[in-house]
Amino acid sequence: MIYVTRKAHFNAAHRLHNSNKSDKWNRETFGKCNNPNWHGHNYTIEVTVAGTVNPETGYVIDLGDLKGIIQKRILDKCDHKNLNLEVPFLEGIIPSTENLVKAFFQELEDDIYEASYGDSKLYSVKLFETERNLAEYRPNPSI
Amino acid sequence: MIYVTRKAHFNAAHRLHNSNKSDKWNRETFGKCNNPNWHGHNYTIEVTVAGTVNPETGYVIDLGDLKGIIQKRILDKCDHKNLNLEVPFLEGIIPSTENLVKAFFQELEDDIYEASYGDSKLYSVKLFETERNLAEYRPNPSI
Amino acid sequence: MIYVTRKAHFNAAHRLHNSNKSDKWNRETFGKCNNPNWHGHNYTIEVTVAGTVNPETGYVIDLGDLKGIIQKRILDKCDHKNLNLEVPFLEGIIPSTENLVKAFFQELEDDIYEASYGDSKLYSVKLFETERNLAEYRPNPSI
Amino acid sequence: MIYVTRKAHFNAAHRLHNSNKSDKWNRETFGKCNNPNWHGHNYTIEVTVAGTVNPETGYVIDLGDLKGIIQKRILDKCDHKNLNLEVPFLEGIIPSTENLVKAFFQELEDDIYEASYGDSKLYSVKLFETERNLAEYRPNPSI
Amino acid sequence: MIYVTRKAHFNAAHRLHNSNKSDKWNRETFGKCNNPNWHGHNYTIEVTVAGTVNPETGYVIDLGDLKGIIQKRILDKCDHKNLNLEVPFLEGIIPSTENLVKAFFQELEDDIYEASYGDSKLYSVKLFETERNLAEYRPNPSI
Amino acid sequence: MIYVTRKAHFNAAHRLHNSNKSDKWNRETFGKCNNPNWHGHNYTIEVTVAGTVNPETGYVIDLGDLKGIIQKRILDKCDHKNLNLEVPFLEGIIPSTENLVKAFFQELEDDIYEASYGDSKLYSVKLFETERNLAEYRPNPSI
Repeated sequence: MIYVTRKAHFNAAHRLHNSNKSDKWNRETFGKCNNPNWHGHNYTIEVTVAGTVNPETGYVIDLGDLKGIIQKRILDKCDHKNLNLEVPFLEGIIPSTENLVKAFFQELEDDIYEASYGDSKLYSVKLFETERNLAEYRPNPSI
Repeated sequence: MIYVTRKAHFNAAHRLHNSNKSDKWNRETFGKCNNPNWHGHNYTIEVTVAGTVNPETGYVIDLGDLKGIIQKRILDKCDHKNLNLEVPFLEGIIPSTENLVKAFFQELEDDIYEASYGDSKLYSVKLFETERNLAEYRPNPSI
Repeated sequence: MIYVTRKAHFNAAHRLHNSNKSDKWNRETFGKCNNPNWHGHNYTIEVTVAGTVNPETGYVIDLGDLKGIIQKRILDKCDHKNLNLEVPFLEGIIPSTENLVKAFFQELEDDIYEASYGDSKLYSVKLFETERNLAEYRPNPSI
Repeated sequence: MIYVTRKAHFNAAHRLHNSNKSDKWNRETFGKCNNPNWHGHNYTIEVTVAGTVNPETGYVIDLGDLKGIIQKRILDKCDHKNLNLEVPFLEGIIPSTENLVKAFFQELEDDIYEASYGDSKLYSVKLFETERNLAEYRPNPSI
Repeated sequence: MIYVTRKAHFNAAHRLHNSNKSDKWNRETFGKCNNPNWHGHNYTIEVTVAGTVNPETGYVIDLGDLKGIIQKRILDKCDHKNLNLEVPFLEGIIPSTENLVKAFFQELEDDIYEASYGDSKLYSVKLFETERNLAEYRPNPSI
Repeated sequence: MIYVTRKAHFNAAHRLHNSNKSDKWNRETFGKCNNPNWHGHNYTIEVTVAGTVNPETGYVIDLGDLKGIIQKRILDKCDHKNLNLEVPFLEGIIPSTENLVKAFFQELEDDIYEASYGDSKLYSVKLFETERNLAEYRPNPSI
């Protein structure tokens, strides 16, 4: 099994807020991450495809294609945006790193399957919120 | 001449907008950085003090003191904040990296002069908006 | 399965030495890492929790809580310390990166289980001794 | 299970080219990576050994030994070389990151098995072609 | 004085070779960097503009404009190229980091002067050949 | 003026202690950095030579020579050592980053002058004690 990874960067504003709860609950639960005037991050996303190598090209997936899919599916929709207000596929989601990374996986999955060789497929999405905090979604850890 | 540097990190939301100009001018000039719903960054600040070494301590400035000054003067006021709306010493300033770094220098200057040895003083403030974009304010480049 | 990671840093002195063996054996086995006058490192620790997301918060574990646990269990005991002489939970252990990372896992495990959502739990501890050398303890690799 | 990793760096020239295909196919498939005048990279290799810890040393493998094996098997053969023309164990292979990482794994496997403690063995080889592109070969992901 | 920096990356092949000297001299002087089959690097370029801030925009230079100039003047000509054979403005130059950085400065200077505010101008070009080796050209160090 | 920089790494133990002062003064002044059982760091040193380029080689200084000088003058004496006890050229010096960087400059100066082209000479030595703390010695800032 070969794993191929591509990294990309984007900047966005967000806040952590559960609209089903009171303002008091939100302030106590999320602290400064609940600031109603927003804060933001330079996010780094790492997308890993697992599979077999096309003997004609030496590629599991053409990294130019993978770069294009990340650009179209994630960066065009999220870069310099407000993740709570402006990203349709994040509607109704508290934009914690955990929730973002799962939503990004689902947004990327189909395009990557079509662009990869053979039965290769999306294996993992990692998202760094800061250099010290990150989440990874890897639904099939045993492969 | 010895130069001592301390780095720190904070996250914030901002937008580039000149309120003396039309919305059209702002959109054309600042592009996606003008997004009215904000975007944000993980900022890295590097503060450099230039001077002479206290022979009793081997310090130009105690880096614990410098860390404390950066915390009090910059991080407590800017971290997880909206730089356009919530930072008194940035009022009326377009929060470009160039303008931020000059404002941060002025905010830090006096406290650092008092905490440093002899005639040591603040030499430079660098601010990374992203890993690829940064500005530095260094008013006396010949020292 | 979602994996959430928090990084932290500390500095410490150590030496590699097996007190059941002769000085000659230690010098030949550990080379300059056996220096009786000690040497030291800037260690980076990465702690990963695996589990499910609390739908009310979007968190597997509050990263502020995780930061606090790492501070209390690892940094308060190891930072600016001598790992051979001053850390009770490392007594009798040769402080190789391999042994440290397993001891850190055991030190962190219970507090993280209590602070995480549902049946989420500590999945992996990585320790960088230098930028080029690291060890990871991951007792249940199949999850 | 403990995982120990050592990183190393080398520089090399290469091009992506399938000699069983036409020049036109190669240009269309590989784009600028097919440049007949070559291009090159600073490669970073990360070699991970999985196993158990020798209680006498605290080592899964002596990282000095691992450094030496990487030097002899990979760096001495690839550093400042042309990967298409000058590396015997890469003959006939399109030097994509995917193909390189598998060939490096096979080149390293036996020496590492002999140098490791007990039944410890090579677990993974990662290769960064750039900071943003990497491949990993990990034939037994469930350990 | 404000200094604004933009970083960019490119990959290229090169060799160090003085065609006015014998092959023996070249091998002895440049060692493995003289390999006739080429080697290559991931180069990182850092371009710094020094000047004053346009009060209407908060910019010394629009970093989008600076990114475009670096793309057109350096990356379009050097990325995935052979620096000895394929870059017109490097003809006749031994492509050491020192010589490259001076040639890049001269290639960038005029476009940057035109795009900057007031009398702002190119101050420094840095080029990293590897993470450990770099050269900087800064013709007017006293500003 | 061209500036050429080489980076290197070493690990060492140290403590901050002024033997002319009481233990109480040392504890209050240096805090945990005064720990009598030592602590340590992964130090990164950056050595910059300023000068003119040899037209026959394209070098200000052969970086292989510079690497060798740093190895002989700094790494062989400091790596895996105790900076308070085992380094003759640091005797009597409180090993703060400020004092180390000045001592390293003086230790390197002559060898670099001899190995450089024309009147090129050592310009700056930077020392990172951690990723966030560093000192630079640059005695002639106007060149």
